Amino acid sequence: MEYNFANRISGLVPSVIREILKFTSNPDIISFAAGNPAPEAFPAKEALEISQKLFSTKPVDALQYGVTEGYAPLIEKITEYIKERYNVGRDFDSVIITSGAQQVMDLTTKVLCNEGDVIICEEPSFIGSLNCFKSYGAKLCGVEIEDDGININMLEEKLKEHPNAKFIYTIPNFQNPTGITMSLEKRKAVYALAKKYNKIILEDNPYGEIRVQGEYIPPIKSFDEEGIVIYAGSFSKLFSPGIRVGYVCAPKEILSKMTVGKQASDVHTTVFFQMLIFEWMSNYDIDIHIKNMQDIYRKKLNLMCDMLDSELAGFLSYNKPQGGMFIWAKLPDHVDMLEFCKRAVKNSVAVVPGTAFMTSEDRKTNCIRLNFSTPSDDDIVKGVKILGKLAKEY
Amino acid sequence: MEYNFANRISGLVPSVIREILKFTSNPDIISFAAGNPAPEAFPAKEALEISQKLFSTKPVDALQYGVTEGYAPLIEKITEYIKERYNVGRDFDSVIITSGAQQVMDLTTKVLCNEGDVIICEEPSFIGSLNCFKSYGAKLCGVEIEDDGININMLEEKLKEHPNAKFIYTIPNFQNPTGITMSLEKRKAVYALAKKYNKIILEDNPYGEIRVQGEYIPPIKSFDEEGIVIYAGSFSKLFSPGIRVGYVCAPKEILSKMTVGKQASDVHTTVFFQMLIFEWMSNYDIDIHIKNMQDIYRKKLNLMCDMLDSELAGFLSYNKPQGGMFIWAKLPDHVDMLEFCKRAVKNSVAVVPGTAFMTSEDRKTNCIRLNFSTPSDDDIVKGVKILGKLAKEY
Repeated sequence: MEYNFANRISGLVPSVIREILKFTSNPDIISFAAGNPAPEAFPAKEALEISQKLFSTKPVDALQYGVTEGYAPLIEKITEYIKERYNVGRDFDSVIITSGAQQVMDLTTKVLCNEGDVIICEEPSFIGSLNCFKSYGAKLCGVEIEDDGININMLEEKLKEHPNAKFIYTIPNFQNPTGITMSLEKRKAVYALAKKYNKIILEDNPYGEIRVQGEYIPPIKSFDEEGIVIYAGSFSKLFSPGIRVGYVCAPKEILSKMTVGKQASDVHTTVFFQMLIFEWMSNYDIDIHIKNMQDIYRKKLNLMCDMLDSELAGFLSYNKPQGGMFIWAKLPDHVDMLEFCKRAVKNSVAVVPGTAFMTSEDRKTNCIRLNFSTPSDDDIVKGVKILGKLAKEY
Repeated sequence: MEYNFANRISGLVPSVIREILKFTSNPDIISFAAGNPAPEAFPAKEALEISQKLFSTKPVDALQYGVTEGYAPLIEKITEYIKERYNVGRDFDSVIITSGAQQVMDLTTKVLCNEGDVIICEEPSFIGSLNCFKSYGAKLCGVEIEDDGININMLEEKLKEHPNAKFIYTIPNFQNPTGITMSLEKRKAVYALAKKYNKIILEDNPYGEIRVQGEYIPPIKSFDEEGIVIYAGSFSKLFSPGIRVGYVCAPKEILSKMTVGKQASDVHTTVFFQMLIFEWMSNYDIDIHIKNMQDIYRKKLNLMCDMLDSELAGFLSYNKPQGGMFIWAKLPDHVDMLEFCKRAVKNSVAVVPGTAFMTSEDRKTNCIRLNFSTPSDDDIVKGVKILGKLAKEY
């Protein structure tokens, strides 16, 4: 039978990164291509302890259907957490639990965008979000990202140009893939522009807790007195990603639509892991965990930067990020970036070609994305040395 | 700020059932309105044992990101399971893991339907699926359901009437809400019609394993030599629903599109519970579990039917289902069904008005849905007695 697929899906190509990920399940390949959090930071012992407790004392609650909005005690806990730490959430806001922060992108697009509507985003940006937006037939409008965040003038131009833009998508902290952190001034400017042009902001903050240097900068949502910011948070880095627990803080009117959308998508997020996260936040010292996690990431970032500086100085140029999981590195103009990535894989090191993160394939970039959180220290040393050797061939 | 929502979501009302469910979290209400599996049947001890093992021996695998298609050993295990038991799956088919069977409805619609496309379904049918279809802007075309399944003549009429129909949605076993089981002849007839009119069938089989009487009838997918059936399976009843693990068996070409859609929706299903289900299927006796589960459901079904017969004979009419979780009962013509449901809730018994399951609110029905799997035996007795008293007022 010949299948007729929906227009929305026909144009979508599988995420290059996830395709590379599959390829790199080959254990002989050193992967700087993944987007996995550092497994050394997972609270595995805590997961064991809490799961024993939950399945011993509340098995039926942990296994039965839950409500779509999420496990009420966890919603309350997260509401406190983001208010106390980030000043996120006003009286008009509420929180619902999602199946990872990815589902926040999905639900936001589902409830806000008709086919053909425009979404304004940083360029480059996280491919998982870009693909999600495209899967609803939304059109992407990229705005270049500078060392201190999105280009504000260009953002305003695009807002003027696209009155049917539905929202502005941004990752202010240690952006994926560039690692760039948006300055406080720019966060305020983005908020002011959204207000001026009557647009929603979708603020994605998956990496907020893995700052390893520099000063804390409050999220855009912390300025939100107007109810125009949808804030996506996640436990994928703070706890672990396999559990698929994220959340969204947004005005209640938007959340009630998202809840209807989520009912139709997956009914609710795994109850057991919502209970587990609640127990973890209630009975363990999150601050010590965050500090340990930051130490692990800092050490790995420093190691990779030291190696890049010693093996690839003059070839790769990059700005050291203040946190997150990625280094965005530029190749010399005369080097064919895609060719370099292919040669790297042939030499058993996988990196992601920067084109993967552009709003369309015809946008040029000579950058690659390097992940430092997944590989072991040994692999970081070995892998960068291989890249260094490769660079000498140019 | 005034929010402009997408057309697809503006027309969607929150599931009446889930709204009632929330209301019935009031512990004073006896709920026959839920759709929860019997908690007595949950393998809670097994969940405890396996979780200890997994978090002790493979914590990083259980907590790290997984691939979108699902945990490979579980995919293999399910592929064997449905082939051996149901003759489901051919060489052109494969299996991917989903976040509950609800996500199969979501992904099927996402990859097959443009806005305005028609989906043909039994009427009444499962509200969660109907809402999901509507959330993609699909138009529903209902076909009446008879005591032995969908009206085949009307199905063919509708197929002629709607050349842009994308698929036929059916729940052949112990349908929700009617409890009706489609006969073997009709299953074959539905398959033949789909083949003749070049349509896909979405076969939803969440209750297959909870047959409590009558002969096993093979799924429509077991006849599928053409690659036109998408088969949705679930662990929500077989194991438990809170874990959100379902699966889909379908032609590989369709699954590859679904995988792209799933990447954009929630990246992957909780890894830990995929591993847990794999361990459970590998190391425990599923057949004994299924037999126990069927005993529990049979006992509850019999109790509710006995009570209905003694308290409401002549008022409520129904056919005893061969399995599943629901009894579909008709009120006398002179009784206002919605009014009856309201009076029931006022008297602390919740039932679902049949209109909740129609393709649109203007479709009439004088039926109500009664769930017998969630309430305790005592509550079944008490609740039906209250309904019986109420009936005497008419």
